[in-house]
Order: sequence, then C-alpha cells, then structure tokens
Amino acid sequence: MSVKTRRTAEGAAVATPDTTAPIAPTAPTSGPISREELQLASRNHALPLEMLNWPITPVGMHYLLVHFDVPHIDPVSWRLNIGGLVDHPHEYTLHDLQHRERRTYAVTMECAGNGRSRMEPRPVSQPWDQGGVGTAEWTGTPLAPLLLDAGVSPDAVELVFTGADRGIQGGVEQQYARGLSVADAMSDDVLLAYEVNGQALPPQHGYPVRLLVPGWYGMTSVKWLRSVEAIDHGFDGYQQLRSYRYSQSPDDPGEPVQRIKVRSLMAPPGIPDFFTRQRTVDAGPVQLSGRAWSGNGTIETVEVCVDGVWEQAQLQAPAGPYAWRGWTFTWIATPGTHELACRATDSMGGTQPDAPEWNYLGMGNNDVQRMTVTVRE
Amino acid sequence: MSVKTRRTAEGAAVATPDTTAPIAPTAPTSGPISREELQLASRNHALPLEMLNWPITPVGMHYLLVHFDVPHIDPVSWRLNIGGLVDHPHEYTLHDLQHRERRTYAVTMECAGNGRSRMEPRPVSQPWDQGGVGTAEWTGTPLAPLLLDAGVSPDAVELVFTGADRGIQGGVEQQYARGLSVADAMSDDVLLAYEVNGQALPPQHGYPVRLLVPGWYGMTSVKWLRSVEAIDHGFDGYQQLRSYRYSQSPDDPGEPVQRIKVRSLMAPPGIPDFFTRQRTVDAGPVQLSGRAWSGNGTIETVEVCVDGVWEQAQLQAPAGPYAWRGWTFTWIATPGTHELACRATDSMGGTQPDAPEWNYLGMGNNDVQRMTVTVRE
Repeated sequence: MSVKTRRTAEGAAVATPDTTAPIAPTAPTSGPISREELQLASRNHALPLEMLNWPITPVGMHYLLVHFDVPHIDPVSWRLNIGGLVDHPHEYTLHDLQHRERRTYAVTMECAGNGRSRMEPRPVSQPWDQGGVGTAEWTGTPLAPLLLDAGVSPDAVELVFTGADRGIQGGVEQQYARGLSVADAMSDDVLLAYEVNGQALPPQHGYPVRLLVPGWYGMTSVKWLRSVEAIDHGFDGYQQLRSYRYSQSPDDPGEPVQRIKVRSLMAPPGIPDFFTRQRTVDAGPVQLSGRAWSGNGTIETVEVCVDGVWEQAQLQAPAGPYAWRGWTFTWIATPGTHELACRATDSMGGTQPDAPEWNYLGMGNNDVQRMTVTVRE
Repeated sequence: MSVKTRRTAEGAAVATPDTTAPIAPTAPTSGPISREELQLASRNHALPLEMLNWPITPVGMHYLLVHFDVPHIDPVSWRLNIGGLVDHPHEYTLHDLQHRERRTYAVTMECAGNGRSRMEPRPVSQPWDQGGVGTAEWTGTPLAPLLLDAGVSPDAVELVFTGADRGIQGGVEQQYARGLSVADAMSDDVLLAYEVNGQALPPQHGYPVRLLVPGWYGMTSVKWLRSVEAIDHGFDGYQQLRSYRYSQSPDDPGEPVQRIKVRSLMAPPGIPDFFTRQRTVDAGPVQLSGRAWSGNGTIETVEVCVDGVWEQAQLQAPAGPYAWRGWTFTWIATPGTHELACRATDSMGGTQPDAPEWNYLGMGNNDVQRMTVTVRE
C-alpha cells in the first residue's frame, strides 16, 4: 500500500495513513450490536423504507452519513480553493458559484456501506440494514468548466476534494478527503452542488457547497467542500486507501469502491408493528411498489418473487438518467404467511446476489431484499 | 385501568386497548441491543449533539419518532374534521387553515422516551440516548378559535386528536391518537401547524397539518392530523392508557407523561473519533456551549461541572418562551482526561438528577449528561 506525504494548497500538512493502524475499529463479529453501532445508527439515519413511495426523497429522509461532526460554516467567509498542479489557482465565493452555469439533476445516492449489517460476520462500522439510500434533486454548477479555467497540468493524475469536517478515524486525524481521476472529475455530470430539492443545502448535507458525482457511492460526493487540488499521484488519504475498499482482511488493500451496484428495494406493504416492523396485509389485490437503481447503466428489469416464484414487475420512467426507476407489481394476496422479494438487473448485465458478498469493511452489499408478511382475511 | 369503547366522528369503530396485551414488546433488559432496537434507531433519528450549535434545528436534524409508517397524504383531498360533542361540527381544508390567523413559535420538542437506553435495566423500545430533541420554528393557526367556532359542549371532558398513521402496537391495531383536556387544548399557545422553519411540513413531520402543544413531550403533538373529537370521558386509547405512562411494572397504570422535564445538553467540544465519538480537545481556553429547556417555567440556571466541580454557565436569551436557552462556559483545558457535565434548573425548582429515574417504559429521563474528553497539548 503506497503512502506519500502531501500538503494542501495552503501548505498545511495533512496526516497520511498510518498503515499500522487498524482499518476498522474492531474486527467483524457475530456478536451483539455494540453501543457504538447504536450511537452511529441514531446519528446517521436511513431512508425509512416507506419513503420509497416518494420519487424524490424529502429533505430529512435522505440517508445521511457524517463521519465526524457537522461543521458550522459561515457562507460569507467560506471559499473554495482550486489549486495544486494548475496554471491558474483560484478562490471562489459562494456567490461566484451561484452565478455560473446552473444545472439540476435528480440523483440516487447510496452509502457504500449500505447493507453492511446484513453480512455475517458483521463488519463493525455504521450498521446499515438497507436504507442507506435516497434520491434528491441537486442543483449546482458543473465542475469541468472550473477545472478548464484553472488549467489542470498534464502532470496531474488526480484531484483531491477536501471537506471542512475533521476528526479521527482508525487512529488517523484527518479532514475528510477523497480523490478522483482527472478524467472522472472532468465528467460532464459532476457538480458543485449548493441546493437540494430547491432549497439551500441543509448543514448536514454539506452547506454551503458539496461535490456531487452521480452514479458513484456517496463517499465520493465530498460535503462541506473547501478545496480541490490537482496532484501528480494517486491520492493516498485514509478515506481512499484505508477505507472504502473491497478487501478480504485488514492486510488486503483490495480494490477501491467506486460506482453504485445495481439494487432494488420494495416499500413494505400493509401496516407495520411499531417495534418489530413486521407487516400485516389485507387479502386481495395488493399493489407492490419500489425503486431500482444502478451506477452502471440503466435498469432493464425488476423481478418480484412471491413464495419462490419470480415474475416481471412493471417499470416506470426514471426522473432522469441518474435517478432510480419506480416499479410496480400487482400481487393477489391470500391469507397466510408469504415471502416477498425483488431483484433488479442493469444494462451492463449486473444483477443482485441472493446473499451478501462478504468483505472486511462491509462495502457494496446489494443482496436481494426479502420480507415476510402476514396476510389476513 | 378504565377502558371504554368509542367511535370516531365518522362512526368508525376504534380498537380499544386490550389490557391483557403486553404494554411493551419485551420486558426491560440488561442484555444486548436487539436488531429491532437498531432498526428503530435507523428510522427515528436523533439530533446529533453538535447540532446544539444551531439555535433553530435545521429540517432533517430535528429528532423524529414515527410510530408506524409516514403516510403519503394528498393535500387537496385532505380534510380536518372537528366533531363529537360540539354544536357545529366542521370540516376544514388546508387552504381554510392557511387563511386563518397565522402564528410562528420557536418550540423545543423532546421525545418522552429520550434517555431511555440510559436506564438499567433498559426498557425496550426506541433506544434513545440523549438526542431525542430539537427546536424548530413552527407556523400554524391557533386551535382555540376553531374550538370556539365549533362550540365545544359543556359535557366535553377531553379532545381526541387522531392522525392518519396506522399500525399495530402492543397487539392493538390503531391509528395514532392522543387526548388533551379541553382546558389544555384551549390554551392560547396550541397550534395547528402547517409549516416548519418557513417551509411546508415535510412528510415525516406531519404533512399537511400537525398539532403542536408547546411545553409537552412530543407524543402530544399528533402528526398527520385528521380529526379533533370532543368526548365526555378521559380518552382511553392505547397511546394514552398503555403507553406514555410513568409506571413501575406492566400492571401499574402509573401517571400520564405530560410536560417536558428540565434538561440541558452540551455540544461535544473538540473533534470526534468516527466510531466511538470520543472527543479530543486542544489544551487552552475552550468555549463549552449547549442548550437548556423545560416545559415547566423558564430556565433559571445552568451549571457546568469539570472533574466534579460545579460552576455557573452564562445564559443567553431564548428564541421565545417555548424555546431552549443557549448557554456558554469558558473552560481552561489542561492536558489529560477530564469529565464534563451540565445541569439545568427551571423556575419551578426542577433540576436534573445525577442518575436516571427508572420506570418501566423508559419515560422522562432527564439525567445529567456526562462526557469524558481527552485534552492534548
């Protein structure tokens, strides 16, 4: 695992990964849920699955993962620095960005750790079940023209995006930072977003400005963005080399987590029990519905399984090329206990596995959702 | 425990509590956290404590407790029925309510179960630590003039507020409903709220209209309000008689949970560890800050404790009579490990206990917050 030292555009030293530090605070476990996991679940909320009934997730219901604390940023003194290996380093105000080209995209974003707590043994971190996802309408200005204005050097390999959020993870003090290849960062759909669902970003979603990289897992879309720095090597920060890897052991560097795997979820039918969330459904025709998405092409099919028999669901048009697709399926529910499931396939041929594909950090689990419901007369 | 049958204004039968059903799904435990508790924590999010730095909690960071599912309500067909023992039953549209007297209050709301998971043995339900609180600016129309227009009968004892959210709790199928005495419901500060922080209520906070009862724990402020019904007896619904009680055992009816007990919380200083949330602080002067509130009078004092020594904090003016008060305290941090705590006292003489005051359902825990921080050179 290569580690280099680096400095920010302002010249401040940035802690580099200590490869002797644990990459996860505790090893995967089959034991009980810890207080720390419960605490993270209370802070970083999931999409309650009935919110799949909304094509655009309301603010406050979109999943949220904040590594450290939500920073309190003064928008007047806030600046975005574009620097490093560029011909024309520049500092932008919020006003500057708001008066450049303006675009709005509906984007489905998912946490790379979504589904982690469904793995066995369970990787110990933010204990997502299935709700680490949401779709919002993000408004901002495209990044590529800013990079063209800056004149990124031909020597540059990656751009490092650094947020204002600071803390300690795996023994390493850090500001949250991620790298993207110059080509990926120049992609036409990458935004510097300053609004969500038609309003200023709320503090917890990166106010005043965040990066937005459609199709990639959420760790890429750095919140509370402070600087974009062109560098001549692969970024070696903690969140790049130590976290967000498909690895099999603490010593395995694995492959980086990047684009969102294909997935579908069903809004639970009927009514819930408060505590267990188990569902009770009235017999008769039941409209099942949900959403499906992929960061690798478009959704081609969604299948619904009732008691082991798979059938095709009806697909709706998505809200745009980066947003989930709604699906529906009419089920004639008969009294008794039934198992429902759904599975999506994307245009790259990706589909969902029946069981989680385990890895050490609990990344990218897109296993088929199954739920047992009780149908009454 | 008295149980009567009742019918809604529309004549529909409403399930009454089955007093043989368990009031909590499982008995209090000293055992590990269950999957069900983790699932509830992921759905019903807490205020991350750094959000105490905001006097008004941003939408999406205010605590949320949804008993069943967030209902998807069409605002055009939505109606509020005021009926029961009234001279002039009436049905209001959203437009009707929006064109009556308009008021905005900053209100601190807290879940009655906040602090539950800090009790030992731990009552098993939504497993709040300390973040089941928030302060928002709610806009709506006062309820009292609507009740005056309806002409509540002198025979009426309580008003029953019923929401659109439906599910099963303690074995009882129900729509969420709560009663208030006529006198409490006629209080000048009770609103039918349709905006929060200057925007339409988001679905999860009760869109299109919720009840708002300042000073009372959150269960009183019924979301997705559908009907207000005057009745000639104390309301006997599940959420009134079986839940939200200060009881010592499953057989003890206990006292009803009502107004919010005095409490203070501190925004954690320094920077966090991602997983443990343990804090690291730089030596020197540290501005500690937080908020304090009570549903029984005003906040008179906040004290801060450093390593066992209590001193007075500085109080700020609250955003209004129903909102928390900010407080600050300058701490000269010296290297090492220190314990910080804070404690508020209200104008009714209420103060916070050192340890949780246990009850079977885990209600009203306002124990002193303590945190251990590491100070570095």
